[in-house]
Amino acid sequence: MVTRARTGEGTRARGTLAQQLIAGHLVDGRMEPGREIGLRIDQTLTQDATGTLVMQELEALGLDRVRTEVSVQYVDHNLLQADERNAEDHAFLRSACRRFGIWYSKPGNGVSHPTHMQRFGVPGKTLAGSDSHTCAAGSLGMLALGTGGLEVALAMAGRPLHVTMPEIWGIRLIGRLPDWVSAKDVVLELLRRHGVKGAVHRILEYHGPGLAALTAMDRHVIANMGAELGATASVFPADAAVRDFLRAEGREADFRELSAEPDAVHDAEDEIDLSALEPLIARPTSPGNVVPVREVAGEPIGQAVIGSSANPGLRDFAVAAAIVEGRQTHPAVSFDINPTSREILADLTRMSATFALITAGARIHQAGCLGCIGMGQAPAAGRNSLRTFPRNFPGRSGTEQDAVWLCSPETAAVSALTGRITDPRRWAEEEGVPCPVLHLPERASVNTAMLEPPLPHEQAASVELERGPNISGLPDFDPLPDVLEGPVLLKTGDDVSTDEISPAGAQALPYRSNIPKLAEFTFTRIDPAYPRRATELGPGGRHFVVGGENYGQGSSREHAAITPRHLGLRAVVAKSYARIHWQNLTNFGVLPLEFTDPGDYDRIDADDRLKLEGLHGALAPGAEARLQLLNTTKGETYEVGHRLSDGRRRTVLAGGIIPALAGDAGRVGDPQK
Amino acid sequence: MVTRARTGEGTRARGTLAQQLIAGHLVDGRMEPGREIGLRIDQTLTQDATGTLVMQELEALGLDRVRTEVSVQYVDHNLLQADERNAEDHAFLRSACRRFGIWYSKPGNGVSHPTHMQRFGVPGKTLAGSDSHTCAAGSLGMLALGTGGLEVALAMAGRPLHVTMPEIWGIRLIGRLPDWVSAKDVVLELLRRHGVKGAVHRILEYHGPGLAALTAMDRHVIANMGAELGATASVFPADAAVRDFLRAEGREADFRELSAEPDAVHDAEDEIDLSALEPLIARPTSPGNVVPVREVAGEPIGQAVIGSSANPGLRDFAVAAAIVEGRQTHPAVSFDINPTSREILADLTRMSATFALITAGARIHQAGCLGCIGMGQAPAAGRNSLRTFPRNFPGRSGTEQDAVWLCSPETAAVSALTGRITDPRRWAEEEGVPCPVLHLPERASVNTAMLEPPLPHEQAASVELERGPNISGLPDFDPLPDVLEGPVLLKTGDDVSTDEISPAGAQALPYRSNIPKLAEFTFTRIDPAYPRRATELGPGGRHFVVGGENYGQGSSREHAAITPRHLGLRAVVAKSYARIHWQNLTNFGVLPLEFTDPGDYDRIDADDRLKLEGLHGALAPGAEARLQLLNTTKGETYEVGHRLSDGRRRTVLAGGIIPALAGDAGRVGDPQK
Repeated sequence: MVTRARTGEGTRARGTLAQQLIAGHLVDGRMEPGREIGLRIDQTLTQDATGTLVMQELEALGLDRVRTEVSVQYVDHNLLQADERNAEDHAFLRSACRRFGIWYSKPGNGVSHPTHMQRFGVPGKTLAGSDSHTCAAGSLGMLALGTGGLEVALAMAGRPLHVTMPEIWGIRLIGRLPDWVSAKDVVLELLRRHGVKGAVHRILEYHGPGLAALTAMDRHVIANMGAELGATASVFPADAAVRDFLRAEGREADFRELSAEPDAVHDAEDEIDLSALEPLIARPTSPGNVVPVREVAGEPIGQAVIGSSANPGLRDFAVAAAIVEGRQTHPAVSFDINPTSREILADLTRMSATFALITAGARIHQAGCLGCIGMGQAPAAGRNSLRTFPRNFPGRSGTEQDAVWLCSPETAAVSALTGRITDPRRWAEEEGVPCPVLHLPERASVNTAMLEPPLPHEQAASVELERGPNISGLPDFDPLPDVLEGPVLLKTGDDVSTDEISPAGAQALPYRSNIPKLAEFTFTRIDPAYPRRATELGPGGRHFVVGGENYGQGSSREHAAITPRHLGLRAVVAKSYARIHWQNLTNFGVLPLEFTDPGDYDRIDADDRLKLEGLHGALAPGAEARLQLLNTTKGETYEVGHRLSDGRRRTVLAGGIIPALAGDAGRVGDPQK
Repeated sequence: MVTRARTGEGTRARGTLAQQLIAGHLVDGRMEPGREIGLRIDQTLTQDATGTLVMQELEALGLDRVRTEVSVQYVDHNLLQADERNAEDHAFLRSACRRFGIWYSKPGNGVSHPTHMQRFGVPGKTLAGSDSHTCAAGSLGMLALGTGGLEVALAMAGRPLHVTMPEIWGIRLIGRLPDWVSAKDVVLELLRRHGVKGAVHRILEYHGPGLAALTAMDRHVIANMGAELGATASVFPADAAVRDFLRAEGREADFRELSAEPDAVHDAEDEIDLSALEPLIARPTSPGNVVPVREVAGEPIGQAVIGSSANPGLRDFAVAAAIVEGRQTHPAVSFDINPTSREILADLTRMSATFALITAGARIHQAGCLGCIGMGQAPAAGRNSLRTFPRNFPGRSGTEQDAVWLCSPETAAVSALTGRITDPRRWAEEEGVPCPVLHLPERASVNTAMLEPPLPHEQAASVELERGPNISGLPDFDPLPDVLEGPVLLKTGDDVSTDEISPAGAQALPYRSNIPKLAEFTFTRIDPAYPRRATELGPGGRHFVVGGENYGQGSSREHAAITPRHLGLRAVVAKSYARIHWQNLTNFGVLPLEFTDPGDYDRIDADDRLKLEGLHGALAPGAEARLQLLNTTKGETYEVGHRLSDGRRRTVLAGGIIPALAGDAGRVGDPQK
């Protein structure tokens, strides 16, 4: 269990599956870590929280019909429908799917990631998705990339997706998981070792003999939470386990064996002995706060939730059902079951697991993301909630003072019985309970009736978009000025998440298509006065934000770039960025700068006035990626850098991709190159 | 199908079951229609939306332990949990149940009415519930009365419940329901004939040979929507159907045969030939807008929902499942299934109906009220939503411009398939589908594990209430002044519902325990400026509201009295009142006056200033129930009356029951007599 550092500066990965997938889709750029590359995208997925903007972007781009092999719009986030806005968005999305040639997955059909894997995942294909957990499809040997909605819109329009060529990090798995330990504990172990920034600018490529005993859905669990490590993607080989999965889904014909070359070399290597793992849990309020369950055992809980794209598989629910069958959950615990797809709920039902869960006291919810994205299921303040979800950032549950823990279905289900955080091994020993042996159906309950296929082109052309009153249209964005001056309206610490920049939850998410309204929630988790203070700078009043490490981690939502931009944010100066948010900032014309000397971070205070001069020249193609940042309050100057390709420089100077394309109405341009 | 009017002024009901039930529980008063009587209450039910106040009232009353045979607190309304408030209320309610000796039904266990019927309903008992659909338990031969929370709190404390002795209205059922017509159509027929005020101050007593083919759960459907007719209660005999029901629930020992005397006479009589009924539907936006389904067939729909206390039975879901089995719901329709209890979901699951529903494209939700009380499932504005619910008042769905229709499960399920309002008989004929024959399990999946029994007294005494920050405590209420003067802040039309006075829905309901905050929503469905205008009158600024017929119909929530009272409302002058709201107004010190000449309603305009002088004398015990109302703006005087007993006069003069009891801390007084 030792991380082997790179064996030398000059060593470069070769022969990895990730590189094969990239090479097979490379449209431009060189495959050298840190350089921008363009990839041909075969498939896209969008979900409803990001999709309403994507559809408006397709419209703004003048697209007639998507040019991908498969594009799917899922409705899984906004399912509560506290007022008319959710249902109106669903109608809008369905009409846009019919207009642009996109599959439409109805509310109730399921969470995008497992559903996409079940119905559309194909080894060897590229997938771009406007959801940070899109990386989950790496479980099938796909190159699956979560990115901003606008990037996905461009991919749907047939344009390449531009990303920074990552390093390839090999994760060698050996041994076999012990009883009561499951896939979630594998990725929690990686988070325990490396934290939430551990895989930034890296692809995690899994290999080794330990893979043999992990099903494709187990691999989904691990691949999915690559997002929490900051990874660009997660890649598993397409082997017998993938073939088994596709066969069960009635799609064996889509199987294609894929693996790294036998002598593949990674840029870095880590090894996990599965047989040495134990049940793990992430404490509040970061997925990186991982400790063994036994260290926190005994803490009382008020809620346990099974579900989300981080534990979406039939076995994840079936194991919980097997644990609670014939028993009763604790009176003080709400035991919530969030089926991840209609298919999985149908399978659970025909194998009697649904009945066992109901009888044990579970609340069975509709298929969807639900509490994982703060859509209901908020716990009482300060009461521990155990969830099989991927994230526990503060307030994401909908409760300001929440105490959310992340764990496996085994740990959550056993704790629901005892009312306390419980190591399932200890409980099994005390109660004399053997580890459940699951008998899952060989064939899934495949049913595509809630998946509406694209209309034929001739019918699609005449479809009108059904636009509800809450879909605002995109605001105008002005170009970057040559001299940018303004106050530091906010200074944040490390690991600020997009949940903190633009909160999700039942209050804010219904406004996801209404930028002026959504902007009123910007940064309010950190500073409730931020929107007011930005507005007080007056129209066009520009400002800066100063950030720490890993600025913009978490969800891929592009609202976290659009809403502060709408309020006048024109440059962020941070120690480092999460990949997707960095892209989103540039896409919407916000300049993402990095401190050359991270120590300068400490020299800037909130409300200091900053100034950048001669930006038009400094961001010209080929110009050195170094700028001088003046602190006019303190009379100091700091060197800052950026990682913008020439294409992205043009985009940021224009004010973002939308204005960059404004002169090209009716055709889809490529502003990045 | 002709309503026989009362045969003469002197005729009085005799020998009815309702009178037997009343006589067996009469504590004071005479059983003459229009006179106040006091009834001993055997059982109570509270739900969470009203229960948090009830528990605070028990505390304010200084109660040690409930004195009823059975009191149950259900959690069925606030299940979405968009933030911490719902979960904190659940914890508060559980702690209050443990403190006061009350059964606690956990979130997910089910909707109060069917769950109470399944687990606690006993023929011959009285039930008071802080929910207007409490009348549903009349299906078992109970005298079940929906009333305000404070009335229920007093009943829990062992005090009699005071109601106006109603007339007894006999509904004779003959014939047998044809194929594709079910219990919901029976009560819709009553609403079609008599409208939403048709049964005010009446008990609906069902009898006749048509009963034989109606199960106890069918009768629940009919009894439940007595609330929509304005009835005081609905009463069915306890006969073989009730015995069958109790046997299936494992409680045959609780059965006791009860029926009217053979020569019973009712105050009025109506007859329904079941064999002549057809599928009916209530158009937006009142349960009284009933038309045959065939007259509106063809209207496109966006949603169909099965569930709620108005169609809660296993057969209601099973028939929907049988209709959609092997078929697919329309792509533009959201088909929502709201199981009404864990038991019913378990039964549906073991009889494979759940699987059929899932496969046909249903969204299966947790057991609870959900969309029926505006907790999610809001439709898109203007898109037709078919629901098996009891109410479709404007905005109750959560969507301001909603279009909600009320119908049977058969009509809703068939329409979900076609995407249009469809008469199930027509569809069956066109598709060649026979009417489903259901095979329901003989024994229900009885499971009491989500029902926590009362703690033994010695343990209960030391339980601390777990009070979250959103539980405000009750405000202080000042006595009624001798001279009451103020403006008419609002003039409403007929049939104003408590949903319009104090809205439910996901925005307002989380504040149900926080009166100052909830008051900001008062009357905003009718006049968004009402709370502001009331506040502008200044502290203690008193005002009037003028109403039409049936003022305060609908939900029993006492918030509809407390919140306007908190804003300064001291007297309502209306043509007539819904029973429960009238009680709630008096309980919280608002004077409910009635025009002697309904024509005077037209002489008063909004913003006129009204004045009542010498109130203390006018409301003294024994004083004539006539007052002179001065309109100082117009220089006119109107005669108005009231129906306050001497006890209620004292209560209103004191400012409500809470201040009336303020001097009696530590013991439970009886302010009504």
